[in-house]
Amino acid sequence: MSKKVVTLGELLLRLSTQGCKRFCQANTFDAIYGGSEANVSVSLANFGVNSYFVSKLPNNPIGRSAEAFLKEYGVNTDYIKLGKGRMGIYFYEKGTSVRSSKVVYDRDNSAITKASVDEFEFDEILKDADWFHVSGITLALGENCIEICKKALKSAKKYNIPVSVDLNYRKQLWPFDKFENTMSEILKDADLCIGWLDSNKNKDFRYNTANFAQKDFDESKYIKIFKNMCKSYNLKYVVTTLRESYLADNNGLSAVAYDGNELYHSKKYNFNILDRVGAGDAFAAGLIYKLVSGSNYKDALEFAVAASVLKHSIEGDFNLVSEEEVKNLLSGNIYGSLQR
Amino acid sequence: MSKKVVTLGELLLRLSTQGCKRFCQANTFDAIYGGSEANVSVSLANFGVNSYFVSKLPNNPIGRSAEAFLKEYGVNTDYIKLGKGRMGIYFYEKGTSVRSSKVVYDRDNSAITKASVDEFEFDEILKDADWFHVSGITLALGENCIEICKKALKSAKKYNIPVSVDLNYRKQLWPFDKFENTMSEILKDADLCIGWLDSNKNKDFRYNTANFAQKDFDESKYIKIFKNMCKSYNLKYVVTTLRESYLADNNGLSAVAYDGNELYHSKKYNFNILDRVGAGDAFAAGLIYKLVSGSNYKDALEFAVAASVLKHSIEGDFNLVSEEEVKNLLSGNIYGSLQR
Amino acid sequence: MSKKVVTLGELLLRLSTQGCKRFCQANTFDAIYGGSEANVSVSLANFGVNSYFVSKLPNNPIGRSAEAFLKEYGVNTDYIKLGKGRMGIYFYEKGTSVRSSKVVYDRDNSAITKASVDEFEFDEILKDADWFHVSGITLALGENCIEICKKALKSAKKYNIPVSVDLNYRKQLWPFDKFENTMSEILKDADLCIGWLDSNKNKDFRYNTANFAQKDFDESKYIKIFKNMCKSYNLKYVVTTLRESYLADNNGLSAVAYDGNELYHSKKYNFNILDRVGAGDAFAAGLIYKLVSGSNYKDALEFAVAASVLKHSIEGDFNLVSEEEVKNLLSGNIYGSLQR
Amino acid sequence: MSKKVVTLGELLLRLSTQGCKRFCQANTFDAIYGGSEANVSVSLANFGVNSYFVSKLPNNPIGRSAEAFLKEYGVNTDYIKLGKGRMGIYFYEKGTSVRSSKVVYDRDNSAITKASVDEFEFDEILKDADWFHVSGITLALGENCIEICKKALKSAKKYNIPVSVDLNYRKQLWPFDKFENTMSEILKDADLCIGWLDSNKNKDFRYNTANFAQKDFDESKYIKIFKNMCKSYNLKYVVTTLRESYLADNNGLSAVAYDGNELYHSKKYNFNILDRVGAGDAFAAGLIYKLVSGSNYKDALEFAVAASVLKHSIEGDFNLVSEEEVKNLLSGNIYGSLQR
Amino acid sequence: MSKKVVTLGELLLRLSTQGCKRFCQANTFDAIYGGSEANVSVSLANFGVNSYFVSKLPNNPIGRSAEAFLKEYGVNTDYIKLGKGRMGIYFYEKGTSVRSSKVVYDRDNSAITKASVDEFEFDEILKDADWFHVSGITLALGENCIEICKKALKSAKKYNIPVSVDLNYRKQLWPFDKFENTMSEILKDADLCIGWLDSNKNKDFRYNTANFAQKDFDESKYIKIFKNMCKSYNLKYVVTTLRESYLADNNGLSAVAYDGNELYHSKKYNFNILDRVGAGDAFAAGLIYKLVSGSNYKDALEFAVAASVLKHSIEGDFNLVSEEEVKNLLSGNIYGSLQR
Amino acid sequence: MSKKVVTLGELLLRLSTQGCKRFCQANTFDAIYGGSEANVSVSLANFGVNSYFVSKLPNNPIGRSAEAFLKEYGVNTDYIKLGKGRMGIYFYEKGTSVRSSKVVYDRDNSAITKASVDEFEFDEILKDADWFHVSGITLALGENCIEICKKALKSAKKYNIPVSVDLNYRKQLWPFDKFENTMSEILKDADLCIGWLDSNKNKDFRYNTANFAQKDFDESKYIKIFKNMCKSYNLKYVVTTLRESYLADNNGLSAVAYDGNELYHSKKYNFNILDRVGAGDAFAAGLIYKLVSGSNYKDALEFAVAASVLKHSIEGDFNLVSEEEVKNLLSGNIYGSLQR
Repeated sequence: MSKKVVTLGELLLRLSTQGCKRFCQANTFDAIYGGSEANVSVSLANFGVNSYFVSKLPNNPIGRSAEAFLKEYGVNTDYIKLGKGRMGIYFYEKGTSVRSSKVVYDRDNSAITKASVDEFEFDEILKDADWFHVSGITLALGENCIEICKKALKSAKKYNIPVSVDLNYRKQLWPFDKFENTMSEILKDADLCIGWLDSNKNKDFRYNTANFAQKDFDESKYIKIFKNMCKSYNLKYVVTTLRESYLADNNGLSAVAYDGNELYHSKKYNFNILDRVGAGDAFAAGLIYKLVSGSNYKDALEFAVAASVLKHSIEGDFNLVSEEEVKNLLSGNIYGSLQR
Repeated sequence: MSKKVVTLGELLLRLSTQGCKRFCQANTFDAIYGGSEANVSVSLANFGVNSYFVSKLPNNPIGRSAEAFLKEYGVNTDYIKLGKGRMGIYFYEKGTSVRSSKVVYDRDNSAITKASVDEFEFDEILKDADWFHVSGITLALGENCIEICKKALKSAKKYNIPVSVDLNYRKQLWPFDKFENTMSEILKDADLCIGWLDSNKNKDFRYNTANFAQKDFDESKYIKIFKNMCKSYNLKYVVTTLRESYLADNNGLSAVAYDGNELYHSKKYNFNILDRVGAGDAFAAGLIYKLVSGSNYKDALEFAVAASVLKHSIEGDFNLVSEEEVKNLLSGNIYGSLQR
Repeated sequence: MSKKVVTLGELLLRLSTQGCKRFCQANTFDAIYGGSEANVSVSLANFGVNSYFVSKLPNNPIGRSAEAFLKEYGVNTDYIKLGKGRMGIYFYEKGTSVRSSKVVYDRDNSAITKASVDEFEFDEILKDADWFHVSGITLALGENCIEICKKALKSAKKYNIPVSVDLNYRKQLWPFDKFENTMSEILKDADLCIGWLDSNKNKDFRYNTANFAQKDFDESKYIKIFKNMCKSYNLKYVVTTLRESYLADNNGLSAVAYDGNELYHSKKYNFNILDRVGAGDAFAAGLIYKLVSGSNYKDALEFAVAASVLKHSIEGDFNLVSEEEVKNLLSGNIYGSLQR
Repeated sequence: MSKKVVTLGELLLRLSTQGCKRFCQANTFDAIYGGSEANVSVSLANFGVNSYFVSKLPNNPIGRSAEAFLKEYGVNTDYIKLGKGRMGIYFYEKGTSVRSSKVVYDRDNSAITKASVDEFEFDEILKDADWFHVSGITLALGENCIEICKKALKSAKKYNIPVSVDLNYRKQLWPFDKFENTMSEILKDADLCIGWLDSNKNKDFRYNTANFAQKDFDESKYIKIFKNMCKSYNLKYVVTTLRESYLADNNGLSAVAYDGNELYHSKKYNFNILDRVGAGDAFAAGLIYKLVSGSNYKDALEFAVAASVLKHSIEGDFNLVSEEEVKNLLSGNIYGSLQR
Repeated sequence: MSKKVVTLGELLLRLSTQGCKRFCQANTFDAIYGGSEANVSVSLANFGVNSYFVSKLPNNPIGRSAEAFLKEYGVNTDYIKLGKGRMGIYFYEKGTSVRSSKVVYDRDNSAITKASVDEFEFDEILKDADWFHVSGITLALGENCIEICKKALKSAKKYNIPVSVDLNYRKQLWPFDKFENTMSEILKDADLCIGWLDSNKNKDFRYNTANFAQKDFDESKYIKIFKNMCKSYNLKYVVTTLRESYLADNNGLSAVAYDGNELYHSKKYNFNILDRVGAGDAFAAGLIYKLVSGSNYKDALEFAVAASVLKHSIEGDFNLVSEEEVKNLLSGNIYGSLQR
Repeated sequence: MSKKVVTLGELLLRLSTQGCKRFCQANTFDAIYGGSEANVSVSLANFGVNSYFVSKLPNNPIGRSAEAFLKEYGVNTDYIKLGKGRMGIYFYEKGTSVRSSKVVYDRDNSAITKASVDEFEFDEILKDADWFHVSGITLALGENCIEICKKALKSAKKYNIPVSVDLNYRKQLWPFDKFENTMSEILKDADLCIGWLDSNKNKDFRYNTANFAQKDFDESKYIKIFKNMCKSYNLKYVVTTLRESYLADNNGLSAVAYDGNELYHSKKYNFNILDRVGAGDAFAAGLIYKLVSGSNYKDALEFAVAASVLKHSIEGDFNLVSEEEVKNLLSGNIYGSLQR
């Protein structure tokens, strides 16, 4: 029987310019929905997991369309509340070549930021769950979201459910100090941390997983930081992706994982990019899927990297690929051969 | 030399589903910009007026695109401020046949609602102006907008500039009581009122010009209300459109104007509808254009109705028609003949 | 608690030319999914019913997309089987003015025509259901479909669940004789029949509900036929829509219902048409929704006609309207007024 | 065996704004090809005629695409020359409701205006032809086009082939005097004239067939003018359409034909309009098709009017309908019924 | 005078998702037509060949549109029959980066699979032809297609016309054994074979030309296989392309040809990919064009490789490039310089 | 206060096929406006310059849309005349991979070629200007354009305004001899020349800046030519870009500048290409912006190259990037990192 995995977060309306148009050239926006933990849930559903997303959406046609969008991609939306507040929006301009992609957030006062902790019955939601996942973005949305998350973690602990946390620092959403303090507390209830957090580091160093460049990879530095994290927060695994950005549409990607003992470095891929939003979430989903299915952390890491690499070839936030497609990439089959 | 007309209001991002798709069917939105007073300004620019729009927009790519959009259509944007706050948005689903159009507002906390009265130098802006126009929508946006509007009216009075006010009641934006109290005060500084306001009326009667049905037209009732308004607010003219809605895409339209003395009823048109948003603003612009150019109020009314009818055949909020095209319709030329 | 309604049928890929292009002008097709009973299920889901669709789809990306499409619109797909066979297709060219719409069927050898009667556990499916619905189209698809349908009817009878049958004769799918013989047998297990079937009639008279013209309406003729049907098939109600086609995009519609006793004629509507496919299914869903909710048949008929009229303003096969929207139309509110 | 019909004219690139956008709103143009005589040729090809179009196009990718476009729709392009000169263009903005459609011509210096009379071997082209057709537009393009046309008429006379001339006055292309003088000379070689030409008439009366309003129809006036034409130019038939323009997208149409003896008035249709360009050419093609096939002029007129009415429901310049579809409309079948 | 080349095969409707969307994201399909031998015919027409395609299509609007599509691109369709059966379809999802393209065939029961060998008069068709071409795909479609092909080969032999066969193994269409047996028989009537067939080989080795990787190129191995083929089937030339797939949108390509004596290896190209479908057909067309025009096989091979490389930059199945464009690439001109 | 920069040239309607479609596949054209000097003006406006474009456009809806387009992008259009003549057009087919982009000019008889030298009051236009720019394309348009340009240069000299000339040779527009003679004369009034002109050179060497390949870079050769130019024309700077074309969508770019003394070679970039039209104009604008702002020529060159490289990532002719974005690229930030 398939595993039940629950994530908690916000679902946003993503408004993207078409093709590679700049915002000032746009007279149409592609409208889809996405958000870190929702992306994880969709990816898990694609792998056959019994996938639940917990959130709150506005009870208007836009909010209901967002919920329908998740249903279409196989996520169970029974725990999504509809109510007051607006739909969070992010405007997205896809970069190309030497021009970076741009995100304009318009997510203040969204429904989840107005939600009350009482609306979510995590004891009910998690009682038969096999995994719980949340990212730092959700924690950044306000005190009520921190409380909601803590309530979820408490239920997870009660039922002894593994918890993964993706740090996902977003400087547009909160100051680094607040991020650091909040996530340090959250990590104490986690088993798996994606990204890293080092209180000794210089603060203008960006703690986003996306900015670890593999070209500067220094194993000993990583081991030191990760060992410290495992000890401080009692984590089972710390993992992070290593990305090299050659052009906005051409990157390299690998990842490292530490199990308290050993640092394992995955295979590295070089590839073109159709849409990189959600690549980190695809990575998280790959990890969770394999770990909840009983894999060892090295196999899980390889699977997660391949899943994340594949995400770059999919339009939108969601990693709409099957387990079989990830395995094909992992198995080293020639890329891009046409099967007829 | 062309006249300078100044309007004050909010410019919104309008996100419309394509064709006649429902919100739940949309995966793309057409993105244009519009808003009651901005619509008036664009229409005036198309008639050759030296047209200024005063507002505040967010200093981000969306806000700057909104400003560029106005420039493209000939409006002078020198008095638009860029700063904090978000872009106001409205989602629009065009109705057809027996299905009504739907608007979902998402305009709270927009830049203009965060603007300070000190940002706008109306003594400078209006010193060489020939007309000032504002609508009830702007007054509905918050206390600061009421203050900004009052400052404008004070400058207008100082320079003896005619003022028009379109009541434009929007029940989604404010309660009727607040509307009534605010607009009663504003009207005291106005010369021309579009729509009507009768403190003796039952409050669930909707005071929007769009809902005067010409089929129920009772001249004596109108004269009584309008006479009362002229007296109470010291108005020169009260005008209102009369609309009959047969289907979402087929309506009838005429208008009446009262000059304190006589009620004049315009020609009536029956027509199909491509996009009815902004038809009231096209009417206001037609009136202002003719009055500021020295027409009598009857000619102005006929011109305004024809302009408004033409607006229904234009996609978007703006009435992108020339004076010549309005005159052609007025002159009774056969509709729709193809000139080659 | 909401009612459970089950329908049985085929879901097709609909490939429509864009706008009003002819097939020979098309270089793109809009791709959606639809089919008579699926349309009924979606409409019921929109009214808040716990709506199930029973079918078989090909286990390939197209078939899985079809299932996801139903999920998006709120239908429970737990009873849909994935397996061998192709996706049924219909090509659709929307007519306008004096040009009729055209359907090219390409549905032979679809998955459901290859399904075995053993794949569907109707005793399980229907044991907690409140209504079962099927249309003549499903019966036309082959002997296995007739067997599957009969199995469903047997279970419905076992649990004493009301059954509705929409005759839906399609001359492209089967000869009239076969239709008449098959449906006569099926109707014996039904409570509600949509459309009519008169073995005394001249055979080239088309028995599709869409072709009863209200302009030729002769009450006594209808009563005679309907009374005969009620007796022959032991039906509770016989209903049919009456359509007048002025232009491909302008029609009139009403309906009549007979309860074994009295012929009730609904209000008539004249309206423009965006997409008329599925209007009969919207009618059926309106009837079922009201009857399963305990309405009398006259209220149900009025609701069903208004629902069907609204369908003509929705693109695609599905009637994506809420109960509130149907009620607004019923209540005689002015069409097409814009609510802001 | 199917008849060979030859037309002579210009094929233009038509650049239309999408939907009903105004020129100033367009950031995309739909690109098709059309032109009066080419439209006739395509319509004839659709009726099964062996249809040839004689012209000259620029030998560049645009000109070659124009030729391919004709081939796609079944016209034989063996007599089209490729060479110097530019592609003639017309920009088209589709009107709706009270707003008229607009044409901006950009056709000066096109390939055919640079063609030499020697390039076209009409003795070869017409030796096995059954009909020759040309319109006033071609004559308006320059002295070389007049010469080319006269050469064609000479060959037609040589082989005793019936000739039809559609007057098609375009005021943007030439002054009325020049039109009148040129066409008077051309008509002497014609058998069938579409439109009318009366040297006694006031010149600002527009001689385009599109502007005969049927509401002002005065039979005796028509008979007088037509009788005069038959005599002056030795014509067999004079025909003209009568159009009433209610809205840009709603018209009425009928036609009259005079055979030197009797004025026959066709059935009248009221209909909605998708695209009215080419409706006159569809009418001409209907007439030619029936006359070349041996019909009497009354049947031909009815067929031509029905064909022309159908054209209004087809996007683009071409009347992409079959003989069967015209006959269905003629036979009075209910409009817009859906055949499944 | 230009050469007459005849191909025999199936024309399919290709339904592609737009951009790089996955099937589950598609709500629109681009609709074009293509198929191996039709692709060869179009490419030949672009090179100025008198190009004929022999096939059967359904006599419905889709089949007739398919025929018109070929006409548009210059292929003579006089030998295409219209009749019973459906239009063969293939759904196409374009891959990018590490994600492969996907084809879903839906071509069973198409018109050509229902065609009778008597419908095609190859003695008439080929009597003045200069070349005949067919691919293994056509042979895979059923016994009737094998019979039709053999009839064609018999006529070709009668008139001594060179015959080329592209093996084109498609594992979705037939098992390898059947392929091997059928094609061995067919090759006996051929002069040129594209691809290779070695009865001594392990069967799970894929015999598709697309999977010869140049990085593993071992000349002696090729010579052995090709020599054997020349002897067994009495072939004049055996050729095959060598492809390296770096990413779905970045490949390398070269080709080898064997004339019974010597193995010639062409220049190798590395390039980006817009659409790789039909690249093999572009190669075949390049070869045929040059050989039928009298080139030696080495020049023909270089031309064919350059033509095939260019195909990857063209959307759709057809290689819409001129001889001059192929020559420019061959001549080593800097890629992608802009000529103004 | 921001600097006033004036350019003189033609604004064209650019009709591009969508995606990478060939002309023969196009049924839609993207319609934007562009032209060498207008592109420079827009880029300057984006950098905050008070940017004016002097030209003439047709007084029809297309010409007025062109003017509105410039306004939208911040250019002051007060000096643009509207009058007789047509809109210049260029058709554009974007290449990809090994296929080059194609331009089909259709610009003869455009409004500016019909303009009179008296229409432009350069003494008025330039009296408060800080820079004047023109390119060889404008000079190629006819004798009247040469006269207009000379009048501008005379005014520039009168007010001592720096002048830049981009040679921009277009072989489709004029013969090399005429270009050489005309530009030699023009350069005498210039301070900065982009591109080079050497009367000793072989004439079939193309003098377009786009064709200096950096792989063949020979410093001494450049110094010799540039020194000669500085002397002959009394220039302050000669600069040129060096481009390497690997594929139509992958190039390398750097530039060299000579100040009469020293040859400075900029950083070189390798990048993918979305749209390369206007890259030279982006380079010119970068140079002018920095020089008019007081930078030294080396910093100006680096800025100009980075700006030009960024242009390749923007759709359309205009370089819609801010100074900050150019600086980010210059500062060597990792390409394509996503800022959230």
